[in-house]
Amino acid sequence: MKLVLKISGKFFDEESSENLIVLKDTIQRLINEGHKVAIVSGGGATARKYIKMGRELGVNEAHLDLLGIWASRLNAYLLTFILSGLTYMKVPENLEEFIEKWESGKVIVTGGFQPGQSTATVAALVSEAIGADYLILATNVDGVYDKDPRYYSDAKLIPKLDTETLKKVLENSQSVKAGTYELLDPLAIKIIERSKIKVIVMNYKKLDKILDIIRGKEIGSVIQPM
Amino acid sequence: MKLVLKISGKFFDEESSENLIVLKDTIQRLINEGHKVAIVSGGGATARKYIKMGRELGVNEAHLDLLGIWASRLNAYLLTFILSGLTYMKVPENLEEFIEKWESGKVIVTGGFQPGQSTATVAALVSEAIGADYLILATNVDGVYDKDPRYYSDAKLIPKLDTETLKKVLENSQSVKAGTYELLDPLAIKIIERSKIKVIVMNYKKLDKILDIIRGKEIGSVIQPM
Amino acid sequence: MKLVLKISGKFFDEESSENLIVLKDTIQRLINEGHKVAIVSGGGATARKYIKMGRELGVNEAHLDLLGIWASRLNAYLLTFILSGLTYMKVPENLEEFIEKWESGKVIVTGGFQPGQSTATVAALVSEAIGADYLILATNVDGVYDKDPRYYSDAKLIPKLDTETLKKVLENSQSVKAGTYELLDPLAIKIIERSKIKVIVMNYKKLDKILDIIRGKEIGSVIQPM
Amino acid sequence: MKLVLKISGKFFDEESSENLIVLKDTIQRLINEGHKVAIVSGGGATARKYIKMGRELGVNEAHLDLLGIWASRLNAYLLTFILSGLTYMKVPENLEEFIEKWESGKVIVTGGFQPGQSTATVAALVSEAIGADYLILATNVDGVYDKDPRYYSDAKLIPKLDTETLKKVLENSQSVKAGTYELLDPLAIKIIERSKIKVIVMNYKKLDKILDIIRGKEIGSVIQPM
Amino acid sequence: MKLVLKISGKFFDEESSENLIVLKDTIQRLINEGHKVAIVSGGGATARKYIKMGRELGVNEAHLDLLGIWASRLNAYLLTFILSGLTYMKVPENLEEFIEKWESGKVIVTGGFQPGQSTATVAALVSEAIGADYLILATNVDGVYDKDPRYYSDAKLIPKLDTETLKKVLENSQSVKAGTYELLDPLAIKIIERSKIKVIVMNYKKLDKILDIIRGKEIGSVIQPM
Amino acid sequence: MKLVLKISGKFFDEESSENLIVLKDTIQRLINEGHKVAIVSGGGATARKYIKMGRELGVNEAHLDLLGIWASRLNAYLLTFILSGLTYMKVPENLEEFIEKWESGKVIVTGGFQPGQSTATVAALVSEAIGADYLILATNVDGVYDKDPRYYSDAKLIPKLDTETLKKVLENSQSVKAGTYELLDPLAIKIIERSKIKVIVMNYKKLDKILDIIRGKEIGSVIQPM
Repeated sequence: MKLVLKISGKFFDEESSENLIVLKDTIQRLINEGHKVAIVSGGGATARKYIKMGRELGVNEAHLDLLGIWASRLNAYLLTFILSGLTYMKVPENLEEFIEKWESGKVIVTGGFQPGQSTATVAALVSEAIGADYLILATNVDGVYDKDPRYYSDAKLIPKLDTETLKKVLENSQSVKAGTYELLDPLAIKIIERSKIKVIVMNYKKLDKILDIIRGKEIGSVIQPM
Repeated sequence: MKLVLKISGKFFDEESSENLIVLKDTIQRLINEGHKVAIVSGGGATARKYIKMGRELGVNEAHLDLLGIWASRLNAYLLTFILSGLTYMKVPENLEEFIEKWESGKVIVTGGFQPGQSTATVAALVSEAIGADYLILATNVDGVYDKDPRYYSDAKLIPKLDTETLKKVLENSQSVKAGTYELLDPLAIKIIERSKIKVIVMNYKKLDKILDIIRGKEIGSVIQPM
Repeated sequence: MKLVLKISGKFFDEESSENLIVLKDTIQRLINEGHKVAIVSGGGATARKYIKMGRELGVNEAHLDLLGIWASRLNAYLLTFILSGLTYMKVPENLEEFIEKWESGKVIVTGGFQPGQSTATVAALVSEAIGADYLILATNVDGVYDKDPRYYSDAKLIPKLDTETLKKVLENSQSVKAGTYELLDPLAIKIIERSKIKVIVMNYKKLDKILDIIRGKEIGSVIQPM
Repeated sequence: MKLVLKISGKFFDEESSENLIVLKDTIQRLINEGHKVAIVSGGGATARKYIKMGRELGVNEAHLDLLGIWASRLNAYLLTFILSGLTYMKVPENLEEFIEKWESGKVIVTGGFQPGQSTATVAALVSEAIGADYLILATNVDGVYDKDPRYYSDAKLIPKLDTETLKKVLENSQSVKAGTYELLDPLAIKIIERSKIKVIVMNYKKLDKILDIIRGKEIGSVIQPM
Repeated sequence: MKLVLKISGKFFDEESSENLIVLKDTIQRLINEGHKVAIVSGGGATARKYIKMGRELGVNEAHLDLLGIWASRLNAYLLTFILSGLTYMKVPENLEEFIEKWESGKVIVTGGFQPGQSTATVAALVSEAIGADYLILATNVDGVYDKDPRYYSDAKLIPKLDTETLKKVLENSQSVKAGTYELLDPLAIKIIERSKIKVIVMNYKKLDKILDIIRGKEIGSVIQPM
Repeated sequence: MKLVLKISGKFFDEESSENLIVLKDTIQRLINEGHKVAIVSGGGATARKYIKMGRELGVNEAHLDLLGIWASRLNAYLLTFILSGLTYMKVPENLEEFIEKWESGKVIVTGGFQPGQSTATVAALVSEAIGADYLILATNVDGVYDKDPRYYSDAKLIPKLDTETLKKVLENSQSVKAGTYELLDPLAIKIIERSKIKVIVMNYKKLDKILDIIRGKEIGSVIQPM
């Protein structure tokens, strides 16, 4: 299978060797089993730190976005070097470069591409360009919930939904918005729909069960494009 | 003033020397008067021709977008060479490269940047990055209409509107949608709003009156960001 | 075998899915049989359209050539994406880049390289750099004729000739010149001679019979370097 | 004057708007007075964070250095954007690129260049390449001390010294070593000596007095190459 | 005036400081007087040395040409650094890069561009691209002769000739061929003719009299394109 | 095994086909036996020639180093083309580019990287980045001697030594310094020590016995890092 793995910036904020070891082992196993993998990393706390300093000094929005993008590329280089031997040893800086390097047969790790574009959109574009079987969003919750699980103890995980449902959830429920929005912004959803990309939302603590989650044997959400 | 001029692909489809001469004279005059100018060109018929051939052969959406982007860059090179002496002699291929070249003090001409991103969005990003006074959308109608002027003889041009009004027009009126949509997609509007960019919609046949249109002395529409 | 396939710009002007499907199938078959292939595409009508607009506005010859080169690269990107999976996913812009990418083992598709240099010369340089067994010129006639077949009903195809004979045909017969000249200009012939490159001229409608033409079983012309 | 300003990574660790405002004002003033400025930024805490994560996962020394270099480039981009208008808008990644961009007449901000090379060495190379009048090391102490001021209350600042004296201080006094070593490693000293570059060590809290420090009117150390 | 100066490889073979000092002073003076200058350097003995070693080991013609091109770029870097302050500090590797850098307003020094292309052709292309007033070929003889001055004591310098005459000289007189051929190969002449570029042939020992030679006051040959 | 082979510039100065043939055969054999190889070439006489000319004209040290680096890259291109088929066809210009290209599985040939950095340091960095089993220094003597073998007939080759011993030899014995110093400067030794790289010093006349030398069956010196 061709898999695109989007790793939330929060993954890096935990500065946890354990997280990184699980990721390393998972990618190694996927490659051994013959899958092809691309990884997109978010910017996390490093991005927020630099954006905050820049904003206080009056830096404009496009340049602030670039600071966030460079922070996400730093995360991408960390993964590139940790996975050394499996990975292409340069982080591509736009989709054209990604497409060129993908042909090397190596795991490509990328951060952000362009201002005004989330890393979720980057992951959707990458999925479209390579014809990915799944776009996997690895984050710090177990999937998509009907309410924000941080505030509602009765929030329920939705194991299967389509993009229309996802968009309604985003529109109707303010409280859910903030948390879920980072998963998929409107442009990412548009790309997912136009190219019929299947999306999995899962917890990065369960990366070792990634294939079971895809097969529906473990907790996670599957989003079907309309 | 700092001006970003987005030229519709239709401008090039007319293959009109007269269009090109007016454009050349206008840019020369703006530079002489001390303004700084960036130009973003659409893809037009050349883009559609290559996308059509690619689609018939099963090329994926990301790669089709790239064909359109390369066509828009061909239009951008045409303008670059016609304006030789005023222009930076390479068409930037992403926002980071644009930002770098902008410092040369020359007119920068660019086409598309990335799949999943309209040239209107490119123009909005460029406007944000340089802090443009106006983003000017030069197209084949005189401005934004309350109805599609191709079908309704009583369609009225709206001389001033805000982005909220623009979005309502786009949502409510199906017939207007197609035509206007190419002007500004949701991502472009989001960027315009977050950085408070003033937008002018005008006819590329009236490029020689561009400053009068900005001053409200000639026909066109001014969009105020909310 | 190592084959360099030069595709005339006319191939693209026909905007024919059938042409493209035959090309795709042929390249796939050649790869399956273990051959290595490089493709050089001409600029065709797209090149002429942009050169015409530029010339009317006083663009200089070097820049007009660049417009033609960018048009040929657009054709090259179309083939690159259609042949996706077999091809290196970036069109090289000069011989040094071509040489670097050739080592990837993928089909490399290229357009023009430099002003003052025909795509036939590009194809000859590419053939020399990789030590091609054959440089194949796929065009809209069946081979080299003793007279221009568009004007003379008794024109005869020359199945075998050497470069000295080719040059005489080009010098003596004005009517043949125009048509044949586009096949091989003097610089291309010089490179063919210095590196003893065998050349085939054939009709792009018969691409599926390319190996039979090389073996002399189908209609085409073989040019032997002196 | 041509000045190279090396900013310690600690400057960024303080995440202080005040620090950044003083730096911005200082650079603006230097440019207004006709000086030419290059800036080299260290990696600081961001570098250490990523190097620590990489080391725990067994990343090799060359790749760990690259993580530090990318962190220092992130600091360099922050300064580039804060000083937007004065700066060249791309951070060069090696000396050849720096030399090329320096000709733009803009302030060039750079981070690290190569593994096995400190940012002090980068600053020395940059100073040599442009023939800098002064290489200024802005750090979190007031200059070079005879003992480590963090441990010895009687440590005395040395207002003037030559590189031979500096090397002896580094060799003889273990306690001083660590702190001072980051200022100038042996390779940086070698470059300073071969090209006779004058060096100033000063506190980044006093950047607004940079010209007074150069003139010896304010606290700092001047190192004369042998 | 816009001047393109092609320096023969023999200039560098003499390893003469005097040659280099005269060149430096000349360029400085031309810039001071407001002229714009591009320089193209040949490969000379360094090129021949590497081509000889490569040929003995069976390197193909395209790669041998690249060795010669890299040698000419080394000569170009020598000039770039000697003229530091006046020059753009990177040697462009193809015409597109040259065109981009020319806009910097600096003296651009270039070596060869592409295999199968002489540095005379490079100089012609550069002249065409910038609309040069004169292409000056500085070599080790005083101009174009009716016979080879190395063998015929009665050889006469031709002060004015057109490209038709030049071509006849090249065709009819074998003995002149070798020496003159390096000045202008057929492709270079074709470019000179299509863009009507005026050419001066002069001795590099007389670089300090370059403007007098252009004005016809000193010894040299002027070639008028047909 | 992973081997980094540093070829002294003197190897190229001999302009000997025999040297080159032995090198070619050796690399071919190493690849056939499954080893992975990177090559770093020195600058030799070509470097000295250009540095001398530059120095006479007042070129600064950083730019002189660049002339030497470009000369070493010319040597690297010669090897790249001679080994065509085995090699990656572009010479990387810095460590980041080397690391990226190394993943191609081809032999990478590189010259110098940065001013202020010897090609020995380049070779040490490359060895560290790829985790080389051996860094082999091929020069014009048989190994490390206790005295300079050019002046002392009783100089003895040291078959095994550690880096501490090497440094003492360098410090204590002036006469040895010059000759050995070019092998390993302090920065190269620092990198060798921090990454525990095993080093072999051997004569490039004996390249065909390289594996025997590694196994201690032939004359050469092994340096063990401390």
